[in-house]
Amino acid sequence: MDTEITSAHIDAAAQRIAAHVRKTPLWVVPSTLLELPWAARGDTPAFEVWLKLEQLQVSGSFKARGMFNRLLANTIPSAGVIAASGGNAGIATAVAARALGVPAEIYVPAIISKGKRDRLAGLGATVVVGGDAYADALVACTRRQQESGALMTHAYDQPEVVAGAGTLAREIESQGGAPDQVLVSVGGGGLVSGIAAWFAGRSEVIALEPELAPTLYRAREAGAPVDVSVSGVAADSLGARRLGSIAWQITQQHVAKSALLADADISEAQRWMWSALKLAVEPAAALPLAALRSGLVRPRAGAKVCLIVCGANLDPASLA
Amino acid sequence: MDTEITSAHIDAAAQRIAAHVRKTPLWVVPSTLLELPWAARGDTPAFEVWLKLEQLQVSGSFKARGMFNRLLANTIPSAGVIAASGGNAGIATAVAARALGVPAEIYVPAIISKGKRDRLAGLGATVVVGGDAYADALVACTRRQQESGALMTHAYDQPEVVAGAGTLAREIESQGGAPDQVLVSVGGGGLVSGIAAWFAGRSEVIALEPELAPTLYRAREAGAPVDVSVSGVAADSLGARRLGSIAWQITQQHVAKSALLADADISEAQRWMWSALKLAVEPAAALPLAALRSGLVRPRAGAKVCLIVCGANLDPASLA
Repeated sequence: MDTEITSAHIDAAAQRIAAHVRKTPLWVVPSTLLELPWAARGDTPAFEVWLKLEQLQVSGSFKARGMFNRLLANTIPSAGVIAASGGNAGIATAVAARALGVPAEIYVPAIISKGKRDRLAGLGATVVVGGDAYADALVACTRRQQESGALMTHAYDQPEVVAGAGTLAREIESQGGAPDQVLVSVGGGGLVSGIAAWFAGRSEVIALEPELAPTLYRAREAGAPVDVSVSGVAADSLGARRLGSIAWQITQQHVAKSALLADADISEAQRWMWSALKLAVEPAAALPLAALRSGLVRPRAGAKVCLIVCGANLDPASLA
Repeated sequence: MDTEITSAHIDAAAQRIAAHVRKTPLWVVPSTLLELPWAARGDTPAFEVWLKLEQLQVSGSFKARGMFNRLLANTIPSAGVIAASGGNAGIATAVAARALGVPAEIYVPAIISKGKRDRLAGLGATVVVGGDAYADALVACTRRQQESGALMTHAYDQPEVVAGAGTLAREIESQGGAPDQVLVSVGGGGLVSGIAAWFAGRSEVIALEPELAPTLYRAREAGAPVDVSVSGVAADSLGARRLGSIAWQITQQHVAKSALLADADISEAQRWMWSALKLAVEPAAALPLAALRSGLVRPRAGAKVCLIVCGANLDPASLA
């Protein structure tokens, strides 16, 4: 399978999805206003923090970019689209299907909350509980797809999905140029590989994962994607069991660094983003700021450091 | 008292506060992506909605601009600063005092929640309960100021505070030019008058108030500011009893329209801003979008309509 994602693929994706997705703000804040525990306030020269507020995207996460691209790049059969996901990929699939006027079936594991099932149903999707665990839902979804012929969307391991995620990096460049560093969270690897494919070494991409969901980190140790056990505060959206094959190819080529963060640092950054910045985000979206606040990443003076704020599908009461 | 606020005053304010406040994002969203109930999706030509995300400002509201300007434009006595406010003005005064290393005393009424008192104390302010109602706290605060000689900040009726608010309009113009219309919430009138002073008729300013807190609307009816009774979902931050005298002068000259909104429309817009846009905002910040969604304001095709999203000091659990 040729899984190269080029800037031409990403340009084409951006054209395809333009009428359906939002151009999200790139918010530039000087590091002196971010109260970084390791940096004395007023130190000069400081660095620029670029917060890409992609949690404001249609569907509440970057996933809408990939799902709209997947649907618009293919002829959608009368059976519509189908996906196995209780999280952001399922929501984005349902949102894209509704916008394009095609039916969506979303297979979910029994463990997901009633709130999430209701949200999917509220978006017009047919929600099917496909077993106890995510793996069971995926098996049931795949079987159903073979019967119905519906177009299946994968949360991260399809070329259109990765190219769609790449439009986020293209948009950042159109707003502020290529940053020196990009800090991005990794689950199955769709987002990081889309971004890395766009910048292709022109920006240093730093891939961040929870210690408790280390798909890329372990793949690099093992020399190939391997199954990992996943848990912790961000498992909801970064809980893929194994890095995608497309992500593996692209990250090997274009991702400079892979690092892990403790759940305590992720949660601290998530709370701080609300209390100090008034950004309500899910734990997965807090990893980039956690890397800055914890001192894991300490940019050089004058650097332009872009943090991808990737999603806000959370219960706001959890911030209280 | 000469209370004219010119662009030169606002330029000077912007210079003064630049190192202490954030440049907040101006988010441009096409109206076709806003699901306005009265506008069929895909109608062309649509209009541009500019969301000025000022709830991301230092202190969680636009008030930081005015308070930093007030403190930086004056010599601060050793007694520091003093204010009577249990809301955004008190928080912004405490934030500015902390940043500048001067003491702050904040007088609050007994009715405000322990959470708000704790937040002020957490910012390093001395919190004094000055009676049962806001009016009592103001009397106690004024008496204390006469003893201590501290610099008093007013929530809206001081020239430096209005000029500080005007820097928000100046920033909008630097980001996107002068919009055709600006929709802004009114409490005591500091924000609307700062914005109107900057645009000075170059943009149509539409002043929005809850039906249950109509200080500007009633002042226009009466021909002068009058006391009104205030209640409802946004009373917390738009609950001034009477329009400020500076605001009265400026709005008479430069505010095109004053309109009222029902609490139900304000609450609907606030909930929608969270569920569809992932913006967590306080009720006062939802009036501009409520005006669009309810159809009170129906911009012409092609118009550039700026909505001021003014604050996010709320309990996020209230959005759940």
